[in-house]
Amino acid sequence: MPKILRVDMSRLRVSSQPAPDAWRLLGGRALTSHIVADEVEPTLHPLARDAKLVFAPGLLGGTAITTSGRASFGGRSPLMGGLKESNVGGVLGHKLAKLGIKAVIIEGAPDDGELRVLHIAPDGGWRFERAGELAGLGNYATCERLLGGASSKTRAVISIGPAGEMRMGAASIAVNDPEGRPTRHAARGGLGALMGAKGLKAIVIDDGGAKNVDAANPAAFRAAMLEFSRIVLDDPRTQNLSRYGTAGVIKFVNRDNVHSLPVKNHTLGTMTTADLLGGQHIAALGEERGGRMLPCMAGCIIKCAILFNDARGEQTTTALEFETIGLLGANLQIDDIDAVARMDRACDDIGLDTIELGNAFGVAMEADVLPWGDWAGVLRLLDEVRAGTPIGRTLGGGTAHAARAYGVGRVPVVKGQGLPAWEPRTLKAMGITYATSPQGADHTAGLVTARGVTPETLLRLSRREQQIMAAVDSAGLCQFSNPVEGDMARFVSALYGVDWTPDDVIALGRRVLVEERDFNRAAGFGRDADQLPSFLRSEPLHTSEGDQVFDLDDALIDAFWDFE
Amino acid sequence: MPKILRVDMSRLRVSSQPAPDAWRLLGGRALTSHIVADEVEPTLHPLARDAKLVFAPGLLGGTAITTSGRASFGGRSPLMGGLKESNVGGVLGHKLAKLGIKAVIIEGAPDDGELRVLHIAPDGGWRFERAGELAGLGNYATCERLLGGASSKTRAVISIGPAGEMRMGAASIAVNDPEGRPTRHAARGGLGALMGAKGLKAIVIDDGGAKNVDAANPAAFRAAMLEFSRIVLDDPRTQNLSRYGTAGVIKFVNRDNVHSLPVKNHTLGTMTTADLLGGQHIAALGEERGGRMLPCMAGCIIKCAILFNDARGEQTTTALEFETIGLLGANLQIDDIDAVARMDRACDDIGLDTIELGNAFGVAMEADVLPWGDWAGVLRLLDEVRAGTPIGRTLGGGTAHAARAYGVGRVPVVKGQGLPAWEPRTLKAMGITYATSPQGADHTAGLVTARGVTPETLLRLSRREQQIMAAVDSAGLCQFSNPVEGDMARFVSALYGVDWTPDDVIALGRRVLVEERDFNRAAGFGRDADQLPSFLRSEPLHTSEGDQVFDLDDALIDAFWDFE
Repeated sequence: MPKILRVDMSRLRVSSQPAPDAWRLLGGRALTSHIVADEVEPTLHPLARDAKLVFAPGLLGGTAITTSGRASFGGRSPLMGGLKESNVGGVLGHKLAKLGIKAVIIEGAPDDGELRVLHIAPDGGWRFERAGELAGLGNYATCERLLGGASSKTRAVISIGPAGEMRMGAASIAVNDPEGRPTRHAARGGLGALMGAKGLKAIVIDDGGAKNVDAANPAAFRAAMLEFSRIVLDDPRTQNLSRYGTAGVIKFVNRDNVHSLPVKNHTLGTMTTADLLGGQHIAALGEERGGRMLPCMAGCIIKCAILFNDARGEQTTTALEFETIGLLGANLQIDDIDAVARMDRACDDIGLDTIELGNAFGVAMEADVLPWGDWAGVLRLLDEVRAGTPIGRTLGGGTAHAARAYGVGRVPVVKGQGLPAWEPRTLKAMGITYATSPQGADHTAGLVTARGVTPETLLRLSRREQQIMAAVDSAGLCQFSNPVEGDMARFVSALYGVDWTPDDVIALGRRVLVEERDFNRAAGFGRDADQLPSFLRSEPLHTSEGDQVFDLDDALIDAFWDFE
Repeated sequence: MPKILRVDMSRLRVSSQPAPDAWRLLGGRALTSHIVADEVEPTLHPLARDAKLVFAPGLLGGTAITTSGRASFGGRSPLMGGLKESNVGGVLGHKLAKLGIKAVIIEGAPDDGELRVLHIAPDGGWRFERAGELAGLGNYATCERLLGGASSKTRAVISIGPAGEMRMGAASIAVNDPEGRPTRHAARGGLGALMGAKGLKAIVIDDGGAKNVDAANPAAFRAAMLEFSRIVLDDPRTQNLSRYGTAGVIKFVNRDNVHSLPVKNHTLGTMTTADLLGGQHIAALGEERGGRMLPCMAGCIIKCAILFNDARGEQTTTALEFETIGLLGANLQIDDIDAVARMDRACDDIGLDTIELGNAFGVAMEADVLPWGDWAGVLRLLDEVRAGTPIGRTLGGGTAHAARAYGVGRVPVVKGQGLPAWEPRTLKAMGITYATSPQGADHTAGLVTARGVTPETLLRLSRREQQIMAAVDSAGLCQFSNPVEGDMARFVSALYGVDWTPDDVIALGRRVLVEERDFNRAAGFGRDADQLPSFLRSEPLHTSEGDQVFDLDDALIDAFWDFE
């Protein structure tokens, strides 16, 4: 019987309860968002003692479905103030599901203000220990010590770095990958700060080699899995990801008619030297230096994570993603991929959202805090973030916080969250997604690159994609496997012994969006929260297809919710 | 015929237009809030080029009515995001009214990003000059140079210090007092940052010795003035203010049953050594050191501004107010009035809201950035604010900004603005005012100290006081003259030749509140914006009348707007 673990950080106790029947067909984002909406006062300060941090495996976690091991973290966002869900690959999701843990709900905070590590054993046993000398350490050292001799095969380590300990707005939560590196991050929305405020440096979960969960209808489940794997493998998008990772997209976004690469704090959409940051160039360097492609979880057949080595062949970072390259590279006029890889490692270690930091540095460069292109300055300032110096806290607080510190009125955020590397002036559906998603400026909430269609079609595409993605995040699947509602309906039906149709999947996605939106409204998000930063409407990008601004009507954007 | 000056900072031009007839009976807050609501896009970033800063004398400005020379500044608040009105004494209001200037509307920003000084001559002539070496100077030096040989009798200087130049969230706008000191501040809501973003270091307005405005019905006007002056002089509150300034109230708020002094970041309500900060003690020091009481504008018969000298008899500051003493003194566990006076001078010179800074320092002390009571540390950090160092920007950004930088979840703000020195847990009507006022946590929006009455009565008292105060701020009167609606109706009727009843005055106040509230809603303020910080509900003050928290129902607070 699936269970809920309640972690009371005030009393340092963990209690186990059977998961309510009503939660049986909720998982991942659907479940974390539901628990937060149900149990967290929307106006309570995100860092208050009574705030809660929740995490859960997806509905399909603990199975052999490819990419089904993502886990969702949820809470009221310290960065944004809204209901946040941030999901992550790595080894966590499958382990939770195999152990029959439907969700973990972390409440309260220790009276002594000291950090703890929580250990959860395969039999449900638990113990807290003081973080001791782990306090202040980066995620790499923390993860290594907490894995000890164990491997990622049996042990998941959830940890925060110094940024989370200092409760910075851009702080992430790290999860280990299959090779034991803390490079998978629930990065967005500052949930690392929430974990820090709960008094948790890390959670170690041992699955004792637990087996996959059993399907109610094994034959149907197996057939669905095989067919899905075949579709994923045959998909040209998969093949591109397997060779070049997400960085492979830079060639597309940098095209003269697409203009979707963030450059110089989102003032430009292309960069002449962008190829130096692209997946093809990284792959060529990898050939020389021994780089390779990794899966972020067991059973993934896509393997899109780039392992990047430096010129001496020593590993710099893994999971070097397009968003990181776009924001910490192009957006800062930096075209040195080695420098960006070092920034990525620093962010993973300090426990920072690379998208948020890239935007915060963009704002700082606009305010002349450091020159455009100064990658050495960025690395130096990341050390200041790690040390929690005043300027480090300014940047670690995220884009809007840095903009406020520097008096910058051109702030690339929606609902307080920094813009990803997809440009709403040319890819206008992304503007709809950023404006309407309860998750703020989040490309994973509904990535639509269609162009040359009517505004109404853009709206429909964003709406459909947001509904699908809310279901995908609830299933615990990776968006790069491109599951559609029919895939998910078959999987859920065979795994849980129910009779889901594609419409049930879409209904789940809708339910998630509405529940999150309602929480946000109660937390104070009005119509204003659905606005894009005004520079996207007033400052054109000069593309080969003419000057482009984001020019969709507010009324069109408001119609997003007409599906209710 | 009264006129409107439009200052176009992009083209560096000033144009004069007749004031619309519809604005004839609007002034001060009613007019600045109306213009902002009418002309400023509520979702436009407060520091954007198209943002506007407005200022206006009160309806009764330019007359001999005592305390009638206050001026209002308005705009979308860089601190809060809502419609802000911040009014100020000093010599500005009377001069604007005497020159027939109904309002000044500042738009745009210079392309070159350089600061300017705008000079306005008695005949309406104007010229811009580059701020040059004034850039970076404090308000004292700026005001002294711009007054030149002239006196405050004919010349008003509106200026910002380094904080406004750096567009800090706590930046104020300074106006000179009758003795030529830049000690009267439109302090709240960060309007100094807005002036900085408009590219204005200062505005110099010369009235050329212009005469008072003429009343439509001189006899009735004169009779009303004489009666009002007699009432003000006979009021025991006046006598207390004349002797001890606003600091005289410390004895009351520190009483064991009142518990309304902010102490240690609002964790306590009394301080055993509070008398060392009180008006009586200051008056005794003044006897020894040559301190005295000053009016902040010509014609004021209250004279509540404390001129404070140091132990050597040299002037430290003037206008040493209760709120400053409460927040920068008691709230930081500092009981050295000489130290607080030095902080006050530093804030005046840098151009900072002392309430906001006191709260920001309280948060910083809670985060162990410096020890409680460390007044030397506060002075040192104020120098960092002046210099714009990273920690200086962290504190100069205001309470919520500092709390975010330090990961503090106990944040004494409402609508993003720091709490004044009136305690909602014991003076519960203040909680209603803070929660409902479109101005955020602002004691001047409706100060009600009644206790021992029903919640419904508290609501009625706050509602009435907020309506009256919105009218008082529109009249340009000082709240310390305690005008009631009948006084204002008589004055407006005799001055403008209309037939106002007390109900018309209340209607004006209501109109102001609703217009501000509607702007705030359009700017994104939902129900959440009307919440007090949760610690006021969860952390009791231990008073001689028992433990007290703020415990009024949300439904009661929401009923505030039932007057519509």
